[in-house]
Amino acid sequence: MTIAALLSAFATAPMTPSDRAARMIRLSCLDWAACALAGRGEPLAGVLRGVALGEGGRAEAGLFGGGRGPARAAALVNGAISHALDYDDTHFAHIGHPSVAVFPAALAVAEREGHGMGAMLEAALLGVEASIRCGLWLGRGHYQVGYHQTATAGAFGATLAAARLCGLSAEETGHALGLAATKAAGLKAQFGTMGKPLNAGLAAECGVMAADWARAGLRSNPGALEGENGFGATHHGADARGAFDGLGETWAFETISHKFHACCHGLHGTLEAMRGIEGTPGQLVIHTHPRWLSVCNIPMPKDGLEAKFSYRMVAAMALAGIDTGEIGSFSDDLAQRADLAALMARVEVVSDDHLSEMQARVLADGVELSHDLAAPMTLETRAARLSAKAEALTGQGAALEAAIAAEDLGAFRAQVFGG
Amino acid sequence: MTIAALLSAFATAPMTPSDRAARMIRLSCLDWAACALAGRGEPLAGVLRGVALGEGGRAEAGLFGGGRGPARAAALVNGAISHALDYDDTHFAHIGHPSVAVFPAALAVAEREGHGMGAMLEAALLGVEASIRCGLWLGRGHYQVGYHQTATAGAFGATLAAARLCGLSAEETGHALGLAATKAAGLKAQFGTMGKPLNAGLAAECGVMAADWARAGLRSNPGALEGENGFGATHHGADARGAFDGLGETWAFETISHKFHACCHGLHGTLEAMRGIEGTPGQLVIHTHPRWLSVCNIPMPKDGLEAKFSYRMVAAMALAGIDTGEIGSFSDDLAQRADLAALMARVEVVSDDHLSEMQARVLADGVELSHDLAAPMTLETRAARLSAKAEALTGQGAALEAAIAAEDLGAFRAQVFGG
Repeated sequence: MTIAALLSAFATAPMTPSDRAARMIRLSCLDWAACALAGRGEPLAGVLRGVALGEGGRAEAGLFGGGRGPARAAALVNGAISHALDYDDTHFAHIGHPSVAVFPAALAVAEREGHGMGAMLEAALLGVEASIRCGLWLGRGHYQVGYHQTATAGAFGATLAAARLCGLSAEETGHALGLAATKAAGLKAQFGTMGKPLNAGLAAECGVMAADWARAGLRSNPGALEGENGFGATHHGADARGAFDGLGETWAFETISHKFHACCHGLHGTLEAMRGIEGTPGQLVIHTHPRWLSVCNIPMPKDGLEAKFSYRMVAAMALAGIDTGEIGSFSDDLAQRADLAALMARVEVVSDDHLSEMQARVLADGVELSHDLAAPMTLETRAARLSAKAEALTGQGAALEAAIAAEDLGAFRAQVFGG
Repeated sequence: MTIAALLSAFATAPMTPSDRAARMIRLSCLDWAACALAGRGEPLAGVLRGVALGEGGRAEAGLFGGGRGPARAAALVNGAISHALDYDDTHFAHIGHPSVAVFPAALAVAEREGHGMGAMLEAALLGVEASIRCGLWLGRGHYQVGYHQTATAGAFGATLAAARLCGLSAEETGHALGLAATKAAGLKAQFGTMGKPLNAGLAAECGVMAADWARAGLRSNPGALEGENGFGATHHGADARGAFDGLGETWAFETISHKFHACCHGLHGTLEAMRGIEGTPGQLVIHTHPRWLSVCNIPMPKDGLEAKFSYRMVAAMALAGIDTGEIGSFSDDLAQRADLAALMARVEVVSDDHLSEMQARVLADGVELSHDLAAPMTLETRAARLSAKAEALTGQGAALEAAIAAEDLGAFRAQVFGG
């Protein structure tokens, strides 16, 4: 059975998500919308919205920040905007950000096709689950050589979500996946530029285009994911077919991570561990996985961006009571603050290969605190923290939550795109 | 110097093409337009036109077969339509079809920006030259592993053509190329499906989008073509930097090939050699490179498509006086014709590793005839044969030629898109 056949069967069967998966997709919907609303004023957002609105076209779907356009264009623009702050959800095994590739496609097509919130959420869950499975199928080597899994594996997930909402047959879905295989793209070489969030938009757009073309009769090679000349073989994929085991029965999406700090994910374990600190210690020793030392250990950050990649600075911020969950906290004047400089002087960072990449160990005046991002968080705790994050980012957290809980797409659209 | 810097300098400098390159781009323009007009009724054309026109948008540029749309959409649709018959030009060292990726982008942007035919042709020459150089830079391994150079290298060429017509600065052009690096895609796994011509359209669309985004202020990593995590490294590229030597001074496009038979390119050397046959021989022995035996040696073709991959059938057609340059000649009823079956019985195909892939040797009753597709053809002969091909394909050959010769974009548009 080809991968396209497996995925097409998944996309056209009734969905029976686990209770946890069904709740997690609602939490990710809230988080995705909040990140997008918070990012709609970024320079990238204005550029992409401007080009899309300049093209015009049928007002099928809303754009974050204003205006409407064809579903394809909305998926592209909204995908990029929602990833602009890099504050959206992550699946570590997938090595990517599932929601920013899938939700923009699902929402735009749901709007156009007149579906309700329930169908949109179901399609989104289908899409994120498929993109995580595709990420696992492609494997770490695909990421290591330079592909941005968010975009590549994400394109297949976006395609499935769009295909379901377009009502494609299993055969048509297979053709859509074949088209996605020849269109999916995205390089890590864009990290640190507007090209990174753009990649998420490209994946979302790919999903809408592939589904629309397949519905209109475009025929491709559905076997183009695996095998000779296929996507995996050409893109340094591992072809780990076991990645699709239990598809539709078990839910990889259950282990999605959400960001609660507006900085590099390598710093999050440390910040979580530091939540247990009482008072202000005279000395702080941070133990972390060796890989992070080359990623987020800038000793004396010069500006807000560099602060997002600095153990010493975020630790000093936490000690000073600055909210690391707020985007605005990472301002350029952090580097000028004498109180932070004094706190940074107390912080030492140590490489520790006994830790996993998701673990941190912090010694505060010798008192040990630790955190593992892989450790389960109760749904109640996660919901409460995402609720607070959404409210802090947008001031619309409660209204967004209410719209999602009521499965009211009209109310949700009014919140995200304006009345 | 990065590849993007090299290409951006090329794209923003005054162009000084050789006389041969300047004449060849006009011949390829004629050939491209004729192939697109002949392909506008293919099923793929209707599907893509329907989806694009369904989206609507500003009527900036024409679509083959009718209707207008945003330049981006026109580039996509026209790129795919012009490659639908696989009858367009080829550059063997590039391993791709340069015109179908570049002309659609150049024409759509020229229409939108109000440029004339001279500027459009200049941008197209810039684009096809760059795409050939990029194809050489990526190398044969990139193609062998499964990438469709027409689409991948073609996207960079289309980007340069669009960037020039948008008036981008060298810096902006670099960003456009960086964006193309994260978007360019296309798999050989689509060969034999509508996905193959679609790939050409994706390259053309990529060029317009990358240029438009860069003009509007989108910033990328212009170093994303080469180096770690770059396009070449991720896409099995050879990084043959010598491919760019003499850029702007020497013209790889001078050695472009045009198809004069509506069948697999592996059969063309044989059909050219057979042009020297007088009368109808009793026995015909065709010597060809071993590689072609697995590509186009179907001994008893069942239909028109299989006939396009059959030495024996095309030889019989040529002996029977059937025009192998006409698309319509390759009909399904060829297989039922007793006269062709009798002629096919006289034909023997022999593997001959003394020949190159572009050479053929034919023995007609022992009289030897040979042809090398790499042998130079005079511009006059080429022009006359392309003129006849365009006329046979469209009935508009003379009018198209006149519009190109007069550098009259209005007249050219009237011919290709209707009045």
